[in-house]
Amino acid sequence: MPPAVPSRIRITEVGPRDGLQNERQTVPTADKIAFINALSLSGVPEIEVSSFVSARQVPQLGDASEVFAGLTRARGVVYSALVPNLKGLEGALACRVEKIAVFTAASETFNRRNINATIAESIDRFAPVLSRAKAHAIAVRAYISCAVACPYEGPIQPSAVADVAQRLLDLGVDEIDLGETIGVAAPTDIDRLYEAVSAVVEPSRTTLHLHDTRGTALACLLRAIEIGVTSFDASSGGLGGCPFAPGASGNLATEDVVYCLNRMGMETGIDLRRIIGAGEIIQRAIGRPLPGRVFRAESPNR
Amino acid sequence: MPPAVPSRIRITEVGPRDGLQNERQTVPTADKIAFINALSLSGVPEIEVSSFVSARQVPQLGDASEVFAGLTRARGVVYSALVPNLKGLEGALACRVEKIAVFTAASETFNRRNINATIAESIDRFAPVLSRAKAHAIAVRAYISCAVACPYEGPIQPSAVADVAQRLLDLGVDEIDLGETIGVAAPTDIDRLYEAVSAVVEPSRTTLHLHDTRGTALACLLRAIEIGVTSFDASSGGLGGCPFAPGASGNLATEDVVYCLNRMGMETGIDLRRIIGAGEIIQRAIGRPLPGRVFRAESPNR
Repeated sequence: MPPAVPSRIRITEVGPRDGLQNERQTVPTADKIAFINALSLSGVPEIEVSSFVSARQVPQLGDASEVFAGLTRARGVVYSALVPNLKGLEGALACRVEKIAVFTAASETFNRRNINATIAESIDRFAPVLSRAKAHAIAVRAYISCAVACPYEGPIQPSAVADVAQRLLDLGVDEIDLGETIGVAAPTDIDRLYEAVSAVVEPSRTTLHLHDTRGTALACLLRAIEIGVTSFDASSGGLGGCPFAPGASGNLATEDVVYCLNRMGMETGIDLRRIIGAGEIIQRAIGRPLPGRVFRAESPNR
Repeated sequence: MPPAVPSRIRITEVGPRDGLQNERQTVPTADKIAFINALSLSGVPEIEVSSFVSARQVPQLGDASEVFAGLTRARGVVYSALVPNLKGLEGALACRVEKIAVFTAASETFNRRNINATIAESIDRFAPVLSRAKAHAIAVRAYISCAVACPYEGPIQPSAVADVAQRLLDLGVDEIDLGETIGVAAPTDIDRLYEAVSAVVEPSRTTLHLHDTRGTALACLLRAIEIGVTSFDASSGGLGGCPFAPGASGNLATEDVVYCLNRMGMETGIDLRRIIGAGEIIQRAIGRPLPGRVFRAESPNR
């Protein structure tokens, strides 16, 4: 008999941030707002809206303030943003962001290339961001990228991930988000990851962020649920495919998660029709077909 | 802890038959032969080569005899074909086919529309085919389509599938192949299916044939392995997408299975590079990108 499963799973929609950040072209602000407003009405409890990094570094998300100013907030939906430093936090506070995400990685090489800092330096930078966020009663998610493997270093030891998680928890973050950045994991990788991580944090206090590059993400999600994880990131239509591999999927598609969990008797609160409708808005804006399986099968406008 | 898993899983490559049957256009015979020859060298233990149905009904596979005559048989690879009746069996015998597959469904409506027969009539037609196949020491696989759901009737009762399986076993077939024809199943559907089916046949005597239309096929395969199933059908590159939903996946992609199982410590005997190379041959022939995730991520010619 398979293990008992929880009745409710929490999905954070990361398409507007992680998805659009990995699109080659920049989507007009009005299209982003229309996309987020449609997501807001789908029943998804949390949307990662944008990133307050410099527009020079991530031009695709250079309009974070305008997007926050333009969107219509729905009751019960948390609107969050990525924040790299105090300057970013000021931008987020000015936009009444309710939750922020800071980011590091379990790979030294990835951190150096991505944010030009060691893991220790990146965590040191979070300290003032966190204390100021706490002063404003803003919840803090901390991403740990490369939780299974790194594009430069290859396999990452689960103990290294647990170590970074411990340091972030010591700093006072509310939620650990484990990023399987390059989409190589099989369910056995999720077992090994949580064997180490659950020594420092309850699986139920973590979020798992999976990429579906090799078609394994949904199987990994289901294994994580068996382990006790109840919070996952996903992206409308699988938005965020690597621009260098046309059609290759990036983020695990929200619809694939919702469809499968519903069929297994688990609830996400997300209306499948409405989330597909949101994906159609952003599909038109980016001008290429989204790769999500359920999206492709069910969208009337495919 | 997850259940113990077997060390070896058997994959039957069904791209040349089920994949090409569902392509809109007919692929030239020489391309089919090149594809099958490349598959033969990938380490896959069994290839469903074609179908001896009338060329009028399935024009895409009207060249079954020519394909068998032209291919180079590799040692240790079983070359099988679909056979609807005695006439088809004669064609298969003339081509030295080593294994045949007969086909029915667990849905009366699907059977009527697909082969213009009731389930009982279809099984009656198998009797002479089977006895003649046995006389030639030809192994017989029996497909049961719509093992989870039917495009016309919707959900199919697992007990109905078990009943058809029992009747086929009574007739003397060697292997039951359960077809999840429309790609709607979640792992819980696989649980329910095998709760009923395992009352009449050991899971290890069945093959599971999954379609990845909604991204759930790999998760279903892994659940089936936990139940004791060790034989699966898959299609190179996910060949066989429904022609009416461009980009929507049809068959579970062989590469996705091989990649994930290898990473979990299970062996298929299939070389990932070589099976991707085979997919590239048929991708060029059909002139559209194959949807398989690993294929898209790893093919150097994508």
